[in-house]
Amino acid sequence: MAKFVNVMPLTETPVYKRDIEIVERKGIGHPDTICDAVVDEVSRRLSKYYLEKFGTILHHNVDKAVLIGGSVDVDFGGGDVLDPIYIMVVGRVTTRVKLDDGGEAEVPIGPIVLSAIRDYIKNNFRFLDPDLHVIPDYRVRSGSQDLRAVFNASDNIPLANDTSVGVSFAPLSPLEKLVYETERLLNSKETKREIPEIGEDIKVMGLRRGSSVNLTIAAATIASLIPNIDHYKEVKERVTEKVEALASKLTPDYDVNVFVNTADIMDGDAPSVYLTVTGTSSEAGDDGQVGRGNRVNGLITPFRPMTLEAAAGKNPVNHVGKIYTVLAHRIADLIVNKIEYAEEAYVEILSQIGKPITEPQVASISVRTNESSKWNVIKSDVEALVEEEISKVITLTQDLVNGKIKVY
Amino acid sequence: MAKFVNVMPLTETPVYKRDIEIVERKGIGHPDTICDAVVDEVSRRLSKYYLEKFGTILHHNVDKAVLIGGSVDVDFGGGDVLDPIYIMVVGRVTTRVKLDDGGEAEVPIGPIVLSAIRDYIKNNFRFLDPDLHVIPDYRVRSGSQDLRAVFNASDNIPLANDTSVGVSFAPLSPLEKLVYETERLLNSKETKREIPEIGEDIKVMGLRRGSSVNLTIAAATIASLIPNIDHYKEVKERVTEKVEALASKLTPDYDVNVFVNTADIMDGDAPSVYLTVTGTSSEAGDDGQVGRGNRVNGLITPFRPMTLEAAAGKNPVNHVGKIYTVLAHRIADLIVNKIEYAEEAYVEILSQIGKPITEPQVASISVRTNESSKWNVIKSDVEALVEEEISKVITLTQDLVNGKIKVY
Amino acid sequence: MAKFVNVMPLTETPVYKRDIEIVERKGIGHPDTICDAVVDEVSRRLSKYYLEKFGTILHHNVDKAVLIGGSVDVDFGGGDVLDPIYIMVVGRVTTRVKLDDGGEAEVPIGPIVLSAIRDYIKNNFRFLDPDLHVIPDYRVRSGSQDLRAVFNASDNIPLANDTSVGVSFAPLSPLEKLVYETERLLNSKETKREIPEIGEDIKVMGLRRGSSVNLTIAAATIASLIPNIDHYKEVKERVTEKVEALASKLTPDYDVNVFVNTADIMDGDAPSVYLTVTGTSSEAGDDGQVGRGNRVNGLITPFRPMTLEAAAGKNPVNHVGKIYTVLAHRIADLIVNKIEYAEEAYVEILSQIGKPITEPQVASISVRTNESSKWNVIKSDVEALVEEEISKVITLTQDLVNGKIKVY
Amino acid sequence: MAKFVNVMPLTETPVYKRDIEIVERKGIGHPDTICDAVVDEVSRRLSKYYLEKFGTILHHNVDKAVLIGGSVDVDFGGGDVLDPIYIMVVGRVTTRVKLDDGGEAEVPIGPIVLSAIRDYIKNNFRFLDPDLHVIPDYRVRSGSQDLRAVFNASDNIPLANDTSVGVSFAPLSPLEKLVYETERLLNSKETKREIPEIGEDIKVMGLRRGSSVNLTIAAATIASLIPNIDHYKEVKERVTEKVEALASKLTPDYDVNVFVNTADIMDGDAPSVYLTVTGTSSEAGDDGQVGRGNRVNGLITPFRPMTLEAAAGKNPVNHVGKIYTVLAHRIADLIVNKIEYAEEAYVEILSQIGKPITEPQVASISVRTNESSKWNVIKSDVEALVEEEISKVITLTQDLVNGKIKVY
Repeated sequence: MAKFVNVMPLTETPVYKRDIEIVERKGIGHPDTICDAVVDEVSRRLSKYYLEKFGTILHHNVDKAVLIGGSVDVDFGGGDVLDPIYIMVVGRVTTRVKLDDGGEAEVPIGPIVLSAIRDYIKNNFRFLDPDLHVIPDYRVRSGSQDLRAVFNASDNIPLANDTSVGVSFAPLSPLEKLVYETERLLNSKETKREIPEIGEDIKVMGLRRGSSVNLTIAAATIASLIPNIDHYKEVKERVTEKVEALASKLTPDYDVNVFVNTADIMDGDAPSVYLTVTGTSSEAGDDGQVGRGNRVNGLITPFRPMTLEAAAGKNPVNHVGKIYTVLAHRIADLIVNKIEYAEEAYVEILSQIGKPITEPQVASISVRTNESSKWNVIKSDVEALVEEEISKVITLTQDLVNGKIKVY
Repeated sequence: MAKFVNVMPLTETPVYKRDIEIVERKGIGHPDTICDAVVDEVSRRLSKYYLEKFGTILHHNVDKAVLIGGSVDVDFGGGDVLDPIYIMVVGRVTTRVKLDDGGEAEVPIGPIVLSAIRDYIKNNFRFLDPDLHVIPDYRVRSGSQDLRAVFNASDNIPLANDTSVGVSFAPLSPLEKLVYETERLLNSKETKREIPEIGEDIKVMGLRRGSSVNLTIAAATIASLIPNIDHYKEVKERVTEKVEALASKLTPDYDVNVFVNTADIMDGDAPSVYLTVTGTSSEAGDDGQVGRGNRVNGLITPFRPMTLEAAAGKNPVNHVGKIYTVLAHRIADLIVNKIEYAEEAYVEILSQIGKPITEPQVASISVRTNESSKWNVIKSDVEALVEEEISKVITLTQDLVNGKIKVY
Repeated sequence: MAKFVNVMPLTETPVYKRDIEIVERKGIGHPDTICDAVVDEVSRRLSKYYLEKFGTILHHNVDKAVLIGGSVDVDFGGGDVLDPIYIMVVGRVTTRVKLDDGGEAEVPIGPIVLSAIRDYIKNNFRFLDPDLHVIPDYRVRSGSQDLRAVFNASDNIPLANDTSVGVSFAPLSPLEKLVYETERLLNSKETKREIPEIGEDIKVMGLRRGSSVNLTIAAATIASLIPNIDHYKEVKERVTEKVEALASKLTPDYDVNVFVNTADIMDGDAPSVYLTVTGTSSEAGDDGQVGRGNRVNGLITPFRPMTLEAAAGKNPVNHVGKIYTVLAHRIADLIVNKIEYAEEAYVEILSQIGKPITEPQVASISVRTNESSKWNVIKSDVEALVEEEISKVITLTQDLVNGKIKVY
Repeated sequence: MAKFVNVMPLTETPVYKRDIEIVERKGIGHPDTICDAVVDEVSRRLSKYYLEKFGTILHHNVDKAVLIGGSVDVDFGGGDVLDPIYIMVVGRVTTRVKLDDGGEAEVPIGPIVLSAIRDYIKNNFRFLDPDLHVIPDYRVRSGSQDLRAVFNASDNIPLANDTSVGVSFAPLSPLEKLVYETERLLNSKETKREIPEIGEDIKVMGLRRGSSVNLTIAAATIASLIPNIDHYKEVKERVTEKVEALASKLTPDYDVNVFVNTADIMDGDAPSVYLTVTGTSSEAGDDGQVGRGNRVNGLITPFRPMTLEAAAGKNPVNHVGKIYTVLAHRIADLIVNKIEYAEEAYVEILSQIGKPITEPQVASISVRTNESSKWNVIKSDVEALVEEEISKVITLTQDLVNGKIKVY
């Protein structure tokens, strides 16, 4: 067995059995998620370009961005964007490539960034116009020489770019599933056809106390489709019903209370509700950054092991902040799906800068089982699985490039 | 007892007894920490300005920033900054204030931001010149109307600006202490006098397996003070010795191995080592953002409860992502310090947007004790303490403004 | 007669009779012209918006912009834009309007700027893609209080915003006509159909010595339509022939030599010629600004009276740097077209800040005639014409807003 | 005689004998002049750096910049800068230099730009704080390949980078002298000691009708030194007296009326006068650009030959828009100072792109004399002088780099 693999029993109270559980998901229209999505799209397009032109993915890291919220004039019935949203992608990119024949090729980084931003907007929003509501920008530099030396030094197995830790777990608890699926439902094409008034910026916060759940949903709405406060109230009711129906299916044992846009002031002469022109709070001053939202499982789970590494935008070859996070996620999933008697898994993998990514400092795996008598078998199976997955970690790269693995 | 307080026993294996433990700290010169520090300084200066001019802290939120790394030409003996570091503070700020007399006052946001950046650089770096190595910038807007209505609606107790969760724990484990103190030591005035060659950008990653600890330190060095590779090696040795001495004092029971700048290539014709002109990797392409580094206890602890909320830059009045995180930290500290038999505490507090910050949705407290026979007393004491602390949460605002509470 | 009108004989040697004459025109795809065009388009769209919403054109001034050239990888047969062109519109704009009913309206300045940039690109270029090759941006502020007080003080006749001078002349000399029409011909739809290889960035410099004329033309070409150096040479020949044909029609008495892209190195192994991906030199580092190119007659004429005021982007109501320049141009035209025996006119009008625009400090008119015996009649007719035109200067505003008057 | 030199008599009415004359100067604190000064300072520092490190001035062109005005809150007695002035230098710079030994050197462009901006502010303003009132920035790229090939192709005499025209004249008319000296006086150290209340942003517009002159002066004032309207009025009176004294010395034959800040509203409850915090209108929304202000003789003279080329920021080696403008200025000066009977000279020099700068297309010289009988001698002397000056044009480069020749 590889010396770095460490498997131990997971004995703490399962999250779903705790008195209290808190889970959050920032939807695809949230400013932080937009940042994650855009930089990861840039990384993927860049990777494809490198592969196509040079046969290999070259060094890049665009795991930073800032979205600066715009301003609007909005009321029931519609409104105007006054100042657009500004999105700046930040990072380092290989833009000049020395070719074998002595020549030098250059990389069209600008159009790659601009098309990534534009396409994400077009594919995920209905009322946010990439022509008039968004200013795309970027500031990227070539990397510092130390890390690039690391990156290039390896012929076969990429060398870890940093000392960092990937963390994940499986399976999702019922509340986690509910929070995740609530946003997915409200942002599904079907729901948008049914209740087009709901915007894309949807944040779901789940709080469970015993079997009682509060689902607090902040959902932007589309002002041009909502003529008045009564219509707005109706939209909220329909959202509430839709989520209640989901909850009764997903978590029948819980008593789920759905709260939509609880900061609204809906009565009186001056109602103040969550209307938007474009479907996202970014239009009116809500800013965003990369790595401030969902982890790679699509959730924020304060009581679960979490890494602060932003997977989005990192290169999928040797950036362990991305690779190991995704690897930890896959390993946890495989353990609970493939290993008999393994009911839950927590996985943590720590790299060592400059070492092959197949050789982490440690892979620490905690596995829960109700069959403690089988522990030795379970342990041995898990070790084998972990070793194999680590040995073929480089296969994740292709899945990341192809978008098979989401990181937000 | 307030209905929202929930106290339960903490039964999971203590972190320090786990086989594996991983802890990280990004030092004061790390690009992410620079971002945190700068925006929090902006928030504090702004708060003081508001207090002095208007008697109250007005709405603001500058919890986003981006630092875009520069570029340098560096070698043993020194080097040049070619392109400066660019720091842009992002957020929303109240810049116009309607006065009681009908007039309107304006807020000098520009000089406040510029001086905050400049002073942080001057006070924390020796070789990073705010005149020539840094371009300060900012893009701030007024907030969206909904949240501001929330903010203003309260006469006494501020209303929570969001539904978010504050999380913390106490006490630090031995490894956590070691990681924290290692950076503090290396960035202390004393060490800088003794080994001036060490830069301010110091990242410490601690990995414990049983009682064996790997402390991986990435420490920028000052090229102008290091004439050659031999000198560089000597600096690394002195750092190693210094940290080993600290470890033998702080964690005598651990077998601590110190690794400094492990990505260095120190032999051969073309050594590649961690030299800088200015003391921070930001000079050469390492970018930064707010909220991507240390939590309010100064650490990144993947196996501990953590929030993804960035405390830095949020306003200290009603931004629960800041207030509740700091509150959780204080409550955890008080429990282990004041409550007899309470050995460890995990604290999670969830707000409800639009409700007074003295009325969270839930305050979930897990307390470890070896005296389970005393649980009822402990529980009752903790409940009383938590209720009191929550009731006087607004006193944190002043401590935050005065800088008594650090958030990174 | 109004005291400020001063009519005198123009006695200096006419430009076309001088030994030497130099004239220049920067075409519609030149970076300076793009800046002029974009800001004037912004001013016109803004004016229309104000008129439609508020019944009057509100204060604005966007007579500054900077275009930062991109970078490309280009060769015969095509190429890539690597970094887009960045265009930033700069100025002051009324973005908040207090309404009669006590309310406040806001102006969607962002979409107005973005659509102005986008539409200019789309309408004037074939290969410059506004989605992928251009980053639009703007930084505008509200004006300083002094000038706004000036602007608002007038009920009827707008008050001059500044002390500045408008200057123009008529008619164009034969060389001036030739230079102007050369660019117009090469950028006409017909020519683009016939010789699509010619880009939009065309600069024409005419030098006349006696009756011998050198027309030096710098014309970007479209790399994707030009497979090799022979094709390139052929394009240059066709351009040369086309311009020679124009010259033989427009200036039959001149011996016109046409030089196209004289900096080309067309022989040897490494030809260096004026290829572009997009049709403008802006793609590869040529930057632009407002007010650095053509005057309102479309030309740069160093030996003619010229103002340095940029007409483009100024508001068409009270910005005398625009209004008086256009007025001078119109008056000069009318004199030579309407006044018998008036053969040439130079017109200069100087405003006084804060005075109605119908009351300039001075309107100085020089008129050339071959019938000096009729001077008294001519003088009196010119005075009458000038007084009338000045008295109805405000009619220019509408023509400017509607785009009937070009300013570049 | 070189074929390109063309000397002819200047016969038109001298400007000082015309009925009407208009002259303008933008002072050193005007936003356009700040832009000119900053970019020319950048060019000079860069040239010195290149000379020192590489023995030759390398390609660069920074003849674009944009200054975006800030905002202030100002009243009698003082005020605050709310948003700083933003200055962005734009252009192309050689930042990587291939050395003879095969290595590559890099150029610290960032600190060069930042120090140029900072030092210009410190050296020319008393109340504009470069730390808190200014955000410096830059966006520069490497040049396009065509022009660089031109630049490098020459071993001895630089090749013209463009087809452009340099234009100048001598001597200054009495009004031109008066306008120039008025600004110089008001911005002199002596005057600032005597009347410290005057800011640095001073614009002078002179209008002469016959022997009657209106000198319209827009002079920023320093609010912190002016407690009230009476003090303000007194400052204006002292400025008026000072300028009147100058005029009675310089232009005793003219009847000079001095108008200071004529847009002021000084009576009533709400005086609106030209107060500033910092001494420049840039603080409150007045934007600036390069090349929009004074020509190389320090003046704007609509009735004189003028080029629209911005000399400021261009490289002093082969950028004919700078070199030829300065050369024309020198030749005109020399003609009127050295050639007997030559009373006035207009000089125009046109380059041809890609040709040595010692071989212009044409140098057209008009010379006025009252001794027409001596014309042949004068003509021959002027030709000799012009040829010699053109042949040694490269000596201008050093003078420009050393700052001996001002261009604004």
